[in-house]
Amino acid sequence: MNPYIRNVEYAVRGKLAIRSDQIREDLEAGVGEFPFKTVVNCNIGNPQQLNQKPITFFRQVASLCENPELLSEDKAHLVSQLYPADAIARAKKLLAMIGPSIGAYSHSQGVPGIRQTVARFLEERDGHPADPSTIYLTQGASSGVQTLLTLLTQNDKTGILIPIPQYPLYSATLSLVGATPVPYYLDEESGWSLDIDNLKTIVREARDQGVDVRALVIINPGNPTGQCLDSDNMRDILTFCHEQRLVLLADEVYQTNIYEPECRPFISFKKAMMEHPNKKIAQQLELVSFHSISKGMIGECGRRGGYFELCNFDYKVEEQIYKMASVSLCPNVHGQILVDLMCGPPRQGDPSYESYHAEVREIYESLRRRSKKLEKAFNSMEGVTCQPALGSMYLFPRIRLPEKAIAKAKQLGMAPDAFYCHEMLEATGVCVVPGSGFGQEHGTWHFRSTFLPPEHLFDDFCSNLQRFHDNFLKENS
Amino acid sequence: MNPYIRNVEYAVRGKLAIRSDQIREDLEAGVGEFPFKTVVNCNIGNPQQLNQKPITFFRQVASLCENPELLSEDKAHLVSQLYPADAIARAKKLLAMIGPSIGAYSHSQGVPGIRQTVARFLEERDGHPADPSTIYLTQGASSGVQTLLTLLTQNDKTGILIPIPQYPLYSATLSLVGATPVPYYLDEESGWSLDIDNLKTIVREARDQGVDVRALVIINPGNPTGQCLDSDNMRDILTFCHEQRLVLLADEVYQTNIYEPECRPFISFKKAMMEHPNKKIAQQLELVSFHSISKGMIGECGRRGGYFELCNFDYKVEEQIYKMASVSLCPNVHGQILVDLMCGPPRQGDPSYESYHAEVREIYESLRRRSKKLEKAFNSMEGVTCQPALGSMYLFPRIRLPEKAIAKAKQLGMAPDAFYCHEMLEATGVCVVPGSGFGQEHGTWHFRSTFLPPEHLFDDFCSNLQRFHDNFLKENS
Repeated sequence: MNPYIRNVEYAVRGKLAIRSDQIREDLEAGVGEFPFKTVVNCNIGNPQQLNQKPITFFRQVASLCENPELLSEDKAHLVSQLYPADAIARAKKLLAMIGPSIGAYSHSQGVPGIRQTVARFLEERDGHPADPSTIYLTQGASSGVQTLLTLLTQNDKTGILIPIPQYPLYSATLSLVGATPVPYYLDEESGWSLDIDNLKTIVREARDQGVDVRALVIINPGNPTGQCLDSDNMRDILTFCHEQRLVLLADEVYQTNIYEPECRPFISFKKAMMEHPNKKIAQQLELVSFHSISKGMIGECGRRGGYFELCNFDYKVEEQIYKMASVSLCPNVHGQILVDLMCGPPRQGDPSYESYHAEVREIYESLRRRSKKLEKAFNSMEGVTCQPALGSMYLFPRIRLPEKAIAKAKQLGMAPDAFYCHEMLEATGVCVVPGSGFGQEHGTWHFRSTFLPPEHLFDDFCSNLQRFHDNFLKENS
Repeated sequence: MNPYIRNVEYAVRGKLAIRSDQIREDLEAGVGEFPFKTVVNCNIGNPQQLNQKPITFFRQVASLCENPELLSEDKAHLVSQLYPADAIARAKKLLAMIGPSIGAYSHSQGVPGIRQTVARFLEERDGHPADPSTIYLTQGASSGVQTLLTLLTQNDKTGILIPIPQYPLYSATLSLVGATPVPYYLDEESGWSLDIDNLKTIVREARDQGVDVRALVIINPGNPTGQCLDSDNMRDILTFCHEQRLVLLADEVYQTNIYEPECRPFISFKKAMMEHPNKKIAQQLELVSFHSISKGMIGECGRRGGYFELCNFDYKVEEQIYKMASVSLCPNVHGQILVDLMCGPPRQGDPSYESYHAEVREIYESLRRRSKKLEKAFNSMEGVTCQPALGSMYLFPRIRLPEKAIAKAKQLGMAPDAFYCHEMLEATGVCVVPGSGFGQEHGTWHFRSTFLPPEHLFDDFCSNLQRFHDNFLKENS
């Protein structure tokens, strides 16, 4: 068997998540006894699994594309009672762009008209031109990241800078392609900030050891850490990448999950690059930005849709990326349709404009409230400290565990944070991911939890966790 | 850059296909002069691009799953005028199986209830038990093949037996993962048959050269060659794999594209394995069978859906396959829904039963007529011979080219068949794939064409090709 696969680790759907599936099956079958009635999966940013409603307009358009019979003249009198006029118009426009049917393979890079929608969205967001020919639609951001990391890997000496803590897609993919992860640590005390001097040292040391460091991965807003970079820090990162000839891989899938937009708005790396005081950087730096329909207020995880934009890539490299995309034929067209809708939502004056914005605002405000509530709950627990989530869907509290718990974990052959999370699952039905799944400063313990449980159950959710924590400390002191 | 990527070749969407896209754009923009009005893409099995109608019932169910508001009580009086009762019932059943929303990530292996539908389908098809826990839903068969080939590759000495001619997904993926393709030739004269003695020699020779031959790929019905294996041949193949300890990778995506079912029906390798006279083979042979929603009479290529079934795999290997699936989170749920419908179509007595079967039969009969027509057209051309398509969506005629054409091709740095196909595209707008994209016996030239152009245009399509061929010979004699 492939030895690289054996090394792959992906804790987000690892042992604990598999155990949570078993418990759910047992609960449904009425087998076994558990001190709770339902399993709550906070191990993964999967909003609709926890009953977040999909955006009505998006689903209306998608369902019309699916069944174009509804768009025929003789059905119009019925369909107009079920669908607003702008959903019908948008579906017709999309079908015209896609070609005869959404059931056909599209262009391997994605439907050209949809890439134009993405380019217009980027131009409006950043105030700088975007070229549809450098945009690649993907089956979720994950598949784009996998493509780029595969491309950048020449051999096992190829090094990729990844943050610690990190989203384990990165370490898993580097294991799979046999590249060398070059970890850099984010500083928890200063809100998971990124220190450029530290990065410079790490690159120098890695290169001294013969590692060919080629790219820097930044997740902004952070996953699992929830920080959001400021413009000064971004400028320095761009200077650093340019000086060190690094490709910058910017995972920006949480760009609309921003909870303190006044003091810390989201700035794209594309915008920061285009406006960098060193003009050469805008012209030369190789930047890839990833985005997804799975996050934000949309949460359409099940469709697997997203895109990446390439900036300043040589056309010969672009040809190779196209070739790789073509071997998989095309990203699924249903995901592409949602990318089009995400990047081109209803405009002022459209019949669905008000309701679209009301839905988005409601989800946003609720996420923000829940993030604050959970942060407060964590910080109220004994021995727990938690940085606020400026962005993303996660909190990553630090837990200080008593000696007895650490010894018990050792006996069970588990990391202490894995033991803590395991006990949490068995006691409360809440599934989170141990910090060891993301990497953490040696000797510290954390876990990642989403704040996605529905709002009407959220107080109970928080107090369950608090009660569990108190009991855990009592039992292990 | 990754050197393996540079080696990847994928002719189905290669240079000619890219050129055909350019011509289409030029035609739409009214730029340039061409001796035809439309581009006809016969380079890829993409039926709905060439106006094959999707199956009505499937799209009805899918559109209801997409917009569950249509299933609410207060809309029932309108929706019942647009949808048959069994489509409504099926959508409700699917949504209950999938969970709160099709917008959530599913189980990484696919929705458990959908895997049960697949298992029941396999049991009915083969008359042998199937276990949902060994079924993996995928984003098209391609992604399943990529997963398995990645898994089987230990290092660059790992050898995988692939047919020549082959579907280039196999060679492209082997290039990407750095494994060694071990080609075995199909015999054109005897209808692209597979000779076991030849296979034995090839494995022995490869192993003598230090290649660790681990698996045999069989595409049945054949792509690009259209043959369909008989039960004697399959029994011998199974014996051979068992003796040589090879994993059998059975690409069975064309299992319903069978055009002479009386004399050469499709038999699955699972059935052949379960009924093999050597009982050990049913218990021990590691078999993977791939299937897809993109082919057959369904042709839902754009959704990217499919599955594979594992037989006799060690659970430790299954764990690794699950882990790989989990890094990509899940196959898109829209593709999964179509897999459920493909494997569980309307049953006798259901309101949609008659219309579903009428649609399937019409597409089938038409494909069969077109395959015969195109085969006849090819065989009527000077210097062209073409085996009949017993299955799949392709013909793979052999063309004998005059010296002058071969010399011209050489001058242009092209393979002679690539030159022929290039001239065909420029003269007729028909895009096919040169035989060199699939591999062929040294010194022979072929191309692959689908027979998917719509039936009312099919006579024109055939006579265009005949006219081109005559002119090509005239110009190059």
